[in-house]
Amino acid sequence: MEIWFLAGVILVFFMQCGFTMVEAGFTRAKNAGNIIMKNLMDFCMGTIAFLAIGYGILCSGNSLGEFMGIPQYDIFSNFSEANWSSFVFNLVFCATAATIVSGAVAERTKFTSYLLYSIIISAIIYPIEAFWVWGSNGWLINRGFIDFAGSAAIHTVGGVAGLIGAIFLGPRIGKYVVKEDGTKEARAIPGHSLTLGALGVFILWFGWYGFNGAAAGDSIQLAQILGTTTIAAAMGSIGAMTTSWIKSGAPDVSLTLNGALAGLVGVTAGCSSVDAVGSIIIGLVAGFLVVIAVEFVDIKLHIDDPVGAFSVHGVCGIWGTIAVGLFAYDGGVFYGGGFDLLIIQIIGIVSIIAWTVVTMTALFFIIKRTIGLRVSAEEEIAGLDSCEHGLISAYADFIPMTHEEFGEKSMTEAIPVYLKEPSEEFKEKKMTKVEIITDQGRFENLKNAMEKIGVTGMTVTQVMGCGTQKGADKTYRGVKVGMTLLPKMQVSIVVSKVPVDEVIQAARKALYTGNIGDGKIFVYDIENVVRIRTGESGYDALQ
Amino acid sequence: MEIWFLAGVILVFFMQCGFTMVEAGFTRAKNAGNIIMKNLMDFCMGTIAFLAIGYGILCSGNSLGEFMGIPQYDIFSNFSEANWSSFVFNLVFCATAATIVSGAVAERTKFTSYLLYSIIISAIIYPIEAFWVWGSNGWLINRGFIDFAGSAAIHTVGGVAGLIGAIFLGPRIGKYVVKEDGTKEARAIPGHSLTLGALGVFILWFGWYGFNGAAAGDSIQLAQILGTTTIAAAMGSIGAMTTSWIKSGAPDVSLTLNGALAGLVGVTAGCSSVDAVGSIIIGLVAGFLVVIAVEFVDIKLHIDDPVGAFSVHGVCGIWGTIAVGLFAYDGGVFYGGGFDLLIIQIIGIVSIIAWTVVTMTALFFIIKRTIGLRVSAEEEIAGLDSCEHGLISAYADFIPMTHEEFGEKSMTEAIPVYLKEPSEEFKEKKMTKVEIITDQGRFENLKNAMEKIGVTGMTVTQVMGCGTQKGADKTYRGVKVGMTLLPKMQVSIVVSKVPVDEVIQAARKALYTGNIGDGKIFVYDIENVVRIRTGESGYDALQ
Amino acid sequence: MEIWFLAGVILVFFMQCGFTMVEAGFTRAKNAGNIIMKNLMDFCMGTIAFLAIGYGILCSGNSLGEFMGIPQYDIFSNFSEANWSSFVFNLVFCATAATIVSGAVAERTKFTSYLLYSIIISAIIYPIEAFWVWGSNGWLINRGFIDFAGSAAIHTVGGVAGLIGAIFLGPRIGKYVVKEDGTKEARAIPGHSLTLGALGVFILWFGWYGFNGAAAGDSIQLAQILGTTTIAAAMGSIGAMTTSWIKSGAPDVSLTLNGALAGLVGVTAGCSSVDAVGSIIIGLVAGFLVVIAVEFVDIKLHIDDPVGAFSVHGVCGIWGTIAVGLFAYDGGVFYGGGFDLLIIQIIGIVSIIAWTVVTMTALFFIIKRTIGLRVSAEEEIAGLDSCEHGLISAYADFIPMTHEEFGEKSMTEAIPVYLKEPSEEFKEKKMTKVEIITDQGRFENLKNAMEKIGVTGMTVTQVMGCGTQKGADKTYRGVKVGMTLLPKMQVSIVVSKVPVDEVIQAARKALYTGNIGDGKIFVYDIENVVRIRTGESGYDALQ
Repeated sequence: MEIWFLAGVILVFFMQCGFTMVEAGFTRAKNAGNIIMKNLMDFCMGTIAFLAIGYGILCSGNSLGEFMGIPQYDIFSNFSEANWSSFVFNLVFCATAATIVSGAVAERTKFTSYLLYSIIISAIIYPIEAFWVWGSNGWLINRGFIDFAGSAAIHTVGGVAGLIGAIFLGPRIGKYVVKEDGTKEARAIPGHSLTLGALGVFILWFGWYGFNGAAAGDSIQLAQILGTTTIAAAMGSIGAMTTSWIKSGAPDVSLTLNGALAGLVGVTAGCSSVDAVGSIIIGLVAGFLVVIAVEFVDIKLHIDDPVGAFSVHGVCGIWGTIAVGLFAYDGGVFYGGGFDLLIIQIIGIVSIIAWTVVTMTALFFIIKRTIGLRVSAEEEIAGLDSCEHGLISAYADFIPMTHEEFGEKSMTEAIPVYLKEPSEEFKEKKMTKVEIITDQGRFENLKNAMEKIGVTGMTVTQVMGCGTQKGADKTYRGVKVGMTLLPKMQVSIVVSKVPVDEVIQAARKALYTGNIGDGKIFVYDIENVVRIRTGESGYDALQ
Repeated sequence: MEIWFLAGVILVFFMQCGFTMVEAGFTRAKNAGNIIMKNLMDFCMGTIAFLAIGYGILCSGNSLGEFMGIPQYDIFSNFSEANWSSFVFNLVFCATAATIVSGAVAERTKFTSYLLYSIIISAIIYPIEAFWVWGSNGWLINRGFIDFAGSAAIHTVGGVAGLIGAIFLGPRIGKYVVKEDGTKEARAIPGHSLTLGALGVFILWFGWYGFNGAAAGDSIQLAQILGTTTIAAAMGSIGAMTTSWIKSGAPDVSLTLNGALAGLVGVTAGCSSVDAVGSIIIGLVAGFLVVIAVEFVDIKLHIDDPVGAFSVHGVCGIWGTIAVGLFAYDGGVFYGGGFDLLIIQIIGIVSIIAWTVVTMTALFFIIKRTIGLRVSAEEEIAGLDSCEHGLISAYADFIPMTHEEFGEKSMTEAIPVYLKEPSEEFKEKKMTKVEIITDQGRFENLKNAMEKIGVTGMTVTQVMGCGTQKGADKTYRGVKVGMTLLPKMQVSIVVSKVPVDEVIQAARKALYTGNIGDGKIFVYDIENVVRIRTGESGYDALQ
Repeated sequence: MEIWFLAGVILVFFMQCGFTMVEAGFTRAKNAGNIIMKNLMDFCMGTIAFLAIGYGILCSGNSLGEFMGIPQYDIFSNFSEANWSSFVFNLVFCATAATIVSGAVAERTKFTSYLLYSIIISAIIYPIEAFWVWGSNGWLINRGFIDFAGSAAIHTVGGVAGLIGAIFLGPRIGKYVVKEDGTKEARAIPGHSLTLGALGVFILWFGWYGFNGAAAGDSIQLAQILGTTTIAAAMGSIGAMTTSWIKSGAPDVSLTLNGALAGLVGVTAGCSSVDAVGSIIIGLVAGFLVVIAVEFVDIKLHIDDPVGAFSVHGVCGIWGTIAVGLFAYDGGVFYGGGFDLLIIQIIGIVSIIAWTVVTMTALFFIIKRTIGLRVSAEEEIAGLDSCEHGLISAYADFIPMTHEEFGEKSMTEAIPVYLKEPSEEFKEKKMTKVEIITDQGRFENLKNAMEKIGVTGMTVTQVMGCGTQKGADKTYRGVKVGMTLLPKMQVSIVVSKVPVDEVIQAARKALYTGNIGDGKIFVYDIENVVRIRTGESGYDALQ
């Protein structure tokens, strides 16, 4: 079993990949690099913080009463006899708690603030409450609290911490629109890739077998854990799908994916102490709860949790912890065990929530008052990839489109909106639009040529074009692709000072190869041009 | 080995992720959410169906002769002594058989019908024939039939079921074009992401080590299975690549990926009973077969199997089952074992195919006559994500382009194609196109402003633009990105009633920030406008 | 442990998936299919080459002195007693060495040449040096060289081989721009998907636990390996992030991802012989080195290594090998072990580099002189997917945009740049642009209709449009999506010979459905058209 224990650790590590994919997929493309960095670095910073402080607090044999362990550092001082197995096991669980938060605070949190948060939770906040639940002398374990793999100690903590972070940050720009009657209306901000999101959910589910199963005592218990985990996840999906279907008339994809996670979170506490019936009910209720909670948080509380981290991990973590008191075949209310277990489960979950609320509020408050929690509105609109990481786009070849909504902001009245007449001497200058459709391969040549003759701006559009030539024959899976449209580039240039003939000549020089497919140039008359910022019009607007 | 057995189960579960990625990647973006839902929910619904009925049929000690087991329900009644290990093992294999079908019926099947199908196959159809092969008293196992991990019992069943589904459904719109001489021509419908497809294939291959290896008796047998599995997969890829290269002049990417799966399917039956030479031949032939089969099904049979599920799982499953009779080092024809094994292998595969054809035909027939199998043409063209799940796009930031082909449909002649002259009073009304190039961030503002002044339509294009300003310096991997094109939005508005000046003023008000980069407005004269539906032209077409 | 050993093999296999995703994500979309094929086929061809030759050289009990084993072929001759465990173990490690190269030579290498390379390295080059390090009688292992999982024998070999390949190939077109003063300036060529890249890194990290851990002797050693591996990877990320932050002012996403891999490569040699402090330092230095090396190779050496394969695997492989001599708690310089171990580590790494440089130089030289290493410039610009695999795009629905730069090439002067006047008789022919905005679903109909009336070209753009109708109500995660823009297609046709009215009538016939949303047709006057290739203008340019 010791080897399985370590194999389970490896599976739990892989959940970091799952979280990254879910959170990246459920948010916008302009923040994908930032999400990756946060999920990667909370594990990395957390590893060091946990090694330095957290592991000692959680796993030390010496303790400060039933509250926390006293760090020993035998990993450094007595290397060969240190319990590496326990270290890596507890590390990957700690990292799971930390990384849940990144989803709730996505798309608007400063990177440095997030790093700081991840150090503190891994070093102190998580290890102390986890000591209560699993430590050598924790007050909850001493009183019979059951949280086999962490519905309370990990998921509830991560979910509640995420909620507090989301409250401190406020919603993303464009998430809520203030209507004329003063009420707020929630707007959906769809994620940029459901396939990435689904990939993440499957990876999480896969890793969850390690998460719930790693600590199994023997292969019989492990088999039972795999069974209850699978059943609860399946029922969670079914519950969420059905609930969303009834509520909005269609089985919602991303809520159903959340439902699978909800079922998994729900059964985490009781995976080794409930039977098939228990896991069916736990999963089904979790799937129902997650849909209701996502909507309640979003539409009623007006808290913006982009991936539903609180609803999945917080709400279902609480449900799962309490459900042990109801369905444990050894001690649960419905299995004739009376109320003792249920009461300690409730005491435990309330204590853990209280601890999380107090410590995380203090932490986020301090960060907000010192280095700040949130990026500026400009940075948020441009995207964190660009502003925090100097990255043009996580998808350089695709150049995603973004829709930002400014409903909340009203424009200053001080805009010089009256147009300036064109300078007298240029009033009669003709303006012309030159539109060039050509292959993408020679664009840089064209751009340089245009710059040289004094063209001051251009607009480039990716188009599909077909002329008289036919595209080369392509096959896909042995079958001909009946497509004669080829990718082309459309470059629009508006000139007034620069003679049109010069533009045409320069463009031909830059683009000529002598092959069919070099493209065409179209010339249009244009009536007027206005520069938005200055109000200049006509000839002047082009200089 | 019991622990490895369970670790193998976890790997097999992960194949669900692989199937989802392969099927999503090999189909169009507009159906990605639907594919995810089908792959997720066939596992979830299947889990419940298998728990309730299928597991009892397959694994019960009591049986109805050699035909099927009689369900016992000790998982519910005698929880602590139930064989959870056997349950989770058989569940994930059952789910594999069920999920194969989703690829063959992709992009046109009703979601509810698919859910119903997945329940029936998991509850009854799969468990009965799997009982024959692996059950306590199955007639095939009793006669020496060898199908170690399921070339016949799982892959052939899944592949044949998929084929029948594809026949019942008919091809996707645009897949076959009727030519003037009345013959049908197949058209390729390329998948939307080969990287997702490749990811899926690698995940499947990874999970296949659990699929083939989970039931290994000891580490020596497991090592041999890993060896034969790897060799066959490699040879399958080589076989498919070579075949596609010879046939179409280039090594086809998606067929080569299919080839790896073909080799894996082929060696699944014999992975523990063939040697290196056997696995080389099995893989190579499977790789060849899959390419031939994909083309034959598509071009000759005119059956539309979007991801090649029948060719991979059906054809190579049959081949793999028969190949055991040829290459088993204990009983194979080429290893001096005579024809006894070969004959029982053939009897087995024929029986399993017959069972699948009969039951699946009945099932699809009933579904078609009751709730219906296929979505409407409108829904298919719009995409199942939109119509079945109320999802705008699985890739909100990218907004994929779709090419639909209507070659089969002829238009009604009753179209009022004659243009209506513009109303007399508006005949002289000038029409003007206003083109605004601006940042994406303020688009919502602009849209509201345009609505307010009575603009009735607009066209938005994502473009790259550069004016006189330079883009902020970006680096990628420490190197300067030499790009001064920035993403912009081009909004085109055609007005006649609304004065152009009013549009320009309103646009400036909406877009003004005072910073460089606010954009430009271009004004063009326009000769005419026609509304396609009504034939109205000029001023009237814009109201 | 034998079972864990085989489970580790499965994890190492999965690293092939990781490499594919990293390399695909860090390069351009137009080569994604080719990258997939190279990573898949180097494993497949390598499997056969290793089975036929390499395995015998590496693992035979008989040897040619301390230089290499003498192949035995008991896998074929004495199947049942062959050591399959050793075969699959050594195979997946061999494949890792081979696949590293594909990243360094990405986006410009001929597919056939790459296949040939992958056979030779797997059959001969890798097995010989790996015999030195791990073989039954290797000269390095006999002298106490420590390379537990292959910092030297695998990563350094792969990285150095990649560097040599990159030198032989030369940089990708557009990578270096020659400036006016004759110096070269490096340009960034951003990868097409950072999320794929991140997925790959997480998968590699996950698989690395098998890579470093598979050969662990017991669960205590395995736990220690998991610990040192995790710590070094975390520190590698931190080191790279910090270095990039200091150098370029922002934490670079892709360099930080490289940093995680750098830490993993660094600790591979010493994962079982260093302690927590050692792995912290090894990881941190590796993270620092990789950033410096990427920049040095790119900007100073002007070698184009698209994914940084040499910097990650070569540089950090060397560092990791030497670091064992410094930090091994049994024999390292800083642990009081004197210089003996350090000296043999240096001798070993120098010998392995020398072997790699000599053999790979010979191999790439021969390939270059015979079948050629590099595709033509035209193929490179069009993309390898299109030219090597007959694939339009790995992302058919997205149609990626590419920016190619031709700074190095100057245009021939022989271009007929003077415009031809339009033929006299057509001089007065009016030219008109017809712009159709319509649904995507009926495009094929429209195209056919236009062809029939003699239209010779068209330009198609994907746009978002809204008319007076409202988009159907969509919800996302239970919240209304406030979006009334719908995806539309804009088709531009310029005609002169074909009457405009005929175009409008034909377009209406093709597009009419009678529903709201059929679209609009706009008509513009056009001043001139020029065909770039011939210089024809006006009417003639359109025929």
